[in-house]
Amino acid sequence: MVATSEKVNLTGFDLKAYLTQKQQLVEVALNNALPMQYPETVFESMRYSLLAGGKRLRPILCLATAELVGATLDQAMPTACALEMIHTMSLIHDDLPSMDNDDFRRGNPTNHKVYGDAVAILAGDGLLAYSFEYVARETRNVPIDRILEVISRLGRAMGDLVSGQVVDIESEGNPNIPIETLTFIHNHKTSALLEAAVLTGAIVGGANEVDRSKLLRYAKNIGLAFQIVDDILDITATSEELGKSAGKDLTAEKATYPKLWGLDESRRQAQALVHQAKAEVSGFGEKALPLMAIADYITARKN
Amino acid sequence: MVATSEKVNLTGFDLKAYLTQKQQLVEVALNNALPMQYPETVFESMRYSLLAGGKRLRPILCLATAELVGATLDQAMPTACALEMIHTMSLIHDDLPSMDNDDFRRGNPTNHKVYGDAVAILAGDGLLAYSFEYVARETRNVPIDRILEVISRLGRAMGDLVSGQVVDIESEGNPNIPIETLTFIHNHKTSALLEAAVLTGAIVGGANEVDRSKLLRYAKNIGLAFQIVDDILDITATSEELGKSAGKDLTAEKATYPKLWGLDESRRQAQALVHQAKAEVSGFGEKALPLMAIADYITARKN
Repeated sequence: MVATSEKVNLTGFDLKAYLTQKQQLVEVALNNALPMQYPETVFESMRYSLLAGGKRLRPILCLATAELVGATLDQAMPTACALEMIHTMSLIHDDLPSMDNDDFRRGNPTNHKVYGDAVAILAGDGLLAYSFEYVARETRNVPIDRILEVISRLGRAMGDLVSGQVVDIESEGNPNIPIETLTFIHNHKTSALLEAAVLTGAIVGGANEVDRSKLLRYAKNIGLAFQIVDDILDITATSEELGKSAGKDLTAEKATYPKLWGLDESRRQAQALVHQAKAEVSGFGEKALPLMAIADYITARKN
Repeated sequence: MVATSEKVNLTGFDLKAYLTQKQQLVEVALNNALPMQYPETVFESMRYSLLAGGKRLRPILCLATAELVGATLDQAMPTACALEMIHTMSLIHDDLPSMDNDDFRRGNPTNHKVYGDAVAILAGDGLLAYSFEYVARETRNVPIDRILEVISRLGRAMGDLVSGQVVDIESEGNPNIPIETLTFIHNHKTSALLEAAVLTGAIVGGANEVDRSKLLRYAKNIGLAFQIVDDILDITATSEELGKSAGKDLTAEKATYPKLWGLDESRRQAQALVHQAKAEVSGFGEKALPLMAIADYITARKN
């Protein structure tokens, strides 16, 4: 998978072990971040979705980038948790009957199927508000101006998620939407938070402008690749593999990259974007191994 | 209305002019804070509710407290706007069919009646995220540690709104809930954001601990008085005066203070709380006139 033109050799880097170790740290941090309290219903609902597993890709991207630019995991962990809270709340609200009306997520009934629409909406609101509070209150040993920039960046990413979801809903039933609209949806619904994950990691670590630009281009490339692969998996993977309904894009008459380009060309485009993403960070040398391996993982993943 | 034991004479303070002037400043600031952009649907929906008028009590409490402790309006305005964004988003979500199912708000159709449930949910999410981003990005000439504390406090208040709404929903259909539960609901659904309004104003202005405590007690007292008056108005005012359905608490079998204490005793309790609130800030002298007049306004209001 590693292009020969790249300076960094990924051989010997055990991505699986890296991801497992980081996932475990994130699980512990998320569990501690949101303890049960009264009223139990809504905290149980928040914890149900927040602690339902998942790849934890956004927190891991944040932690990996923070370490790349010299920060510690402890410095970045509140931001990493906030990213997952925002991601989770967006899934809870997207799954609602009045939105995408999904019954399953990560192999389990969706939040509103278990707790009802009202609590699911409130659990999402609670997670969103708490994500900002948590970063503001729990970040340690990071200059305050960086914390403020993280909060601002997280807010913007959430705004992007909202904009992407609105255009997505408005485009449903129209399989012939222009490529610009499809790109807008994906840039906002998917890439925005992946970019925020990388950028907030860079901000926590105090990366300079040049490094930030490289990392942002890395993030933009993997963000789009991630979405293309999502579209491919919706067609090629089973519901069991995905942990959610497969083939939904087809039945919902959604525009997708495979519909636009075909499956083979979509795979090629995703590969090219991953290649480009890795090239952006190859100049960081060995330190960039996690980010480069994560880029490969995005096209290789099965769910 | 002014108790003779108080040191500050409210005679000559033109509350109406004060509120009108501050409301106008807040309207301009809110309008500028959230310009139209693509995708128009959701920004129109956010602006529809955010700019629908209303008393702007929370922003005004924030501005009045900030000025009381020596800050300028400019320093506090982003926080004041954020409070109204949070208040507005909580109303949008509370009005949804799966929650309180209200068709009218401030005399106009509720957000979801105009834009549909999906956009209303997303508009609320967008306003909530933007409130934090806006404070982080737009606050000027305020030490950064104070801005961070404001964000943390706003997040907590939003968490309280969520908790209050959950217990409120769970208590519906049970008119015999204990007074502790009723108090929990009101402390969280109503008082929390009024307290946050006063406290964030104090934080922006760098109030010391002693002054903060006085202001917090002021806020707690007007918060509870506000809710008691809301319950009274639900019985005594017309839907036209309220701009929303009157008598809803009765039909929804909600526990209220008038049901618990009767109308007369509820009025006495509200008066006593306002009296206590004014006493808490009377030591600030002339500077406290706006907060004292606002306290009186809370029991005198008709909607």
